[in-house]
Amino acid sequence: MQLINGGVCAAQGFTANGIHCGIRKNTTKADLALVYSEIPANAAAIYTTNLVKGAPLLVTKAHLANGKAQAVICNSGNANTCNADGIEIAEKMSQLTADQLGIAADDVVVASTGVIGQRLNVEPIAAGLPQLAAGLSAEGADAAAKAIMTTDTIDKKVAVEFELGGKVCRMGGMAKGSGMIHPNMATMLVFITTDAAISAPMIQKALRCDVQDTFNMTSVDGDTSTNDMVTLLANGLAGNAEITEEGEDFAAFMKALNTITMHLCRMIAGDGEGATRLIECMVTGAADMAVARTAAKSVICSSLVKAAMFGADANWGRILCAIGYSGADVDVTKVDVAFRSAKGEIPVCKDGAGIDFSEEIAKEILLEKEIEILVSLGDGDCAATAWGCDLTYDYVKINGDYRT
Amino acid sequence: MQLINGGVCAAQGFTANGIHCGIRKNTTKADLALVYSEIPANAAAIYTTNLVKGAPLLVTKAHLANGKAQAVICNSGNANTCNADGIEIAEKMSQLTADQLGIAADDVVVASTGVIGQRLNVEPIAAGLPQLAAGLSAEGADAAAKAIMTTDTIDKKVAVEFELGGKVCRMGGMAKGSGMIHPNMATMLVFITTDAAISAPMIQKALRCDVQDTFNMTSVDGDTSTNDMVTLLANGLAGNAEITEEGEDFAAFMKALNTITMHLCRMIAGDGEGATRLIECMVTGAADMAVARTAAKSVICSSLVKAAMFGADANWGRILCAIGYSGADVDVTKVDVAFRSAKGEIPVCKDGAGIDFSEEIAKEILLEKEIEILVSLGDGDCAATAWGCDLTYDYVKINGDYRT
Repeated sequence: MQLINGGVCAAQGFTANGIHCGIRKNTTKADLALVYSEIPANAAAIYTTNLVKGAPLLVTKAHLANGKAQAVICNSGNANTCNADGIEIAEKMSQLTADQLGIAADDVVVASTGVIGQRLNVEPIAAGLPQLAAGLSAEGADAAAKAIMTTDTIDKKVAVEFELGGKVCRMGGMAKGSGMIHPNMATMLVFITTDAAISAPMIQKALRCDVQDTFNMTSVDGDTSTNDMVTLLANGLAGNAEITEEGEDFAAFMKALNTITMHLCRMIAGDGEGATRLIECMVTGAADMAVARTAAKSVICSSLVKAAMFGADANWGRILCAIGYSGADVDVTKVDVAFRSAKGEIPVCKDGAGIDFSEEIAKEILLEKEIEILVSLGDGDCAATAWGCDLTYDYVKINGDYRT
Repeated sequence: MQLINGGVCAAQGFTANGIHCGIRKNTTKADLALVYSEIPANAAAIYTTNLVKGAPLLVTKAHLANGKAQAVICNSGNANTCNADGIEIAEKMSQLTADQLGIAADDVVVASTGVIGQRLNVEPIAAGLPQLAAGLSAEGADAAAKAIMTTDTIDKKVAVEFELGGKVCRMGGMAKGSGMIHPNMATMLVFITTDAAISAPMIQKALRCDVQDTFNMTSVDGDTSTNDMVTLLANGLAGNAEITEEGEDFAAFMKALNTITMHLCRMIAGDGEGATRLIECMVTGAADMAVARTAAKSVICSSLVKAAMFGADANWGRILCAIGYSGADVDVTKVDVAFRSAKGEIPVCKDGAGIDFSEEIAKEILLEKEIEILVSLGDGDCAATAWGCDLTYDYVKINGDYRT
């Protein structure tokens, strides 16, 4: 398996585009994205567990009931959530897209991201769709990835090539997400496409399994969004024997999927609102997976750990504190902690107590852009990784006046 | 019942003092506090649920096994937590205090607060104790409250006068706490004294019941500390008939206790690290108490809500989002939200959807120092309040270089 270019257009038969249609006042920021498969694809999605769900998610869920989709329409600048006519607007967006492409409305995945509780005006979308559809191309992955950005500072896309039964398959994805990131069964918006042949139930199974160790282990600010959704469209154009059960092919598919999602998680966490550093917490030596995941996620969610990382301060006591209150059953007298980055690795805590270390070397390690917090629980063989970022002045700035 | 002066010395027979003994380098900041009862008092405490527990908590727990205490010794500047010799040092602190006062070591409540994982040097404490004990007085409540501060910007103390069976009783308390505030069965350090006569089991019952709606509903940053502890000493000098069961007297005692603790919660939240505003979230119309508490606490813990409050931004969508992911079983289509402060009240959301409101008036209301977020769930008669603060540049600054 190898990383390739092309994002959501890397797989055969997929085209995409992104334009500014006028939902945002800033005309230099694209706000409408379209992804299209030349034939109907098997599809599945996972949605936020937030009880407040964006209207587009409810409409998409209904559309994917038959396990089929052929297009994704997504606007940024307005979440179409907590609005009285949200469902109606999301359905209208789907219908307009379907009419433009000559497909059925229930083969459209519809998504919105941006501010909550402001009515979404469908007019700019209606007016922009002809141009958007006319510009669909295999080179449109960048434009689409840019059009779904909100406070993101970089567009997030990735693709891989892999083999299934001797056939070359490709899978690519794009994501948006920078704040309100604390996914639970999904994350902000993620769209993945592949030309591998795989049944809709197996797509659902693959996604559900994958997110446990990827998007559900990522957090920027502990706030689970109302509009989280990850969707995967598989159009089968690679010509492999359709995957309909677990086995070697499904395992290869899962490996490709996990490469895509892990990559996107790292990009989302590293581009967290205001972030200056990507923080990875790797917990090893756990008695079971639940303990490993709970402890790792508690560390990357701690405001105090996040602020210490911003200050490049090796304040490991806060890491122990976060493990201690995580709810995971841990013997704190067996916990070891070390920091690692491109500049090296430094142990700071052994058996739950501090050890002598050079503050200067620790500072040098922690000043890097990507930091690993290594936690060993000394209690078993299970491991998990969680992704987050530091807490900075800019996070406060971005969220202190998001709407103004 | 009325508020009075005197803090932990308001009740008969209690004296206190606070000095700089040298744990901190900054000689202008006191770092050692002592509270003394002229006779042994019935006592109880509640401790952090963090699995990582400060050594002083373990020693205090052993000392309070007999339900008696006569003194509290507390240093700031070092938490004496995650150190190999922590227990030994905490026991030494108790013994030195007991020797100085001529009481038993197991009648000493010992506490420490400050940085985790650095060895606590007991020498400055040993050297300072004679001066500390010699200065004990009924006017020493301020000095003691100041000596337990860490990043707190104001000392936190309160006292009330109330009656039990015709006898005038007094109760007073002091607290420290500004960061790592997300108590679970207790908060940072809180010491409460009373001259009411009440048995040790009833003190324990009163505390356990009270903290559910006070300290456990307070959060600054979502981080449950390793050194949380709230203790209550009752020396019985008011001469009331000892409370040994539930009834009218216990209810009056609970009311006094709740007044003290609620006051301290508001002070802790309002003085949260870097905070510019105290945020109170009042949830009404809940189907049960658990829903009310869970929803209220989720709102005041949301980084996005906290940042919006810093920016005086009426971004109510984030409040709905926080209720939605709280885990509480809520019908989001029935939720109403309003903001209130000394400048007035403004409804912003009705039945889960936005309503027209004046952004100018909302901004004026939210620019106040104390903000109430009023949430009505429209689903029953239960209510709960949670206390928190805004998320600011200064929180990041304080915690980005706490140790340096």
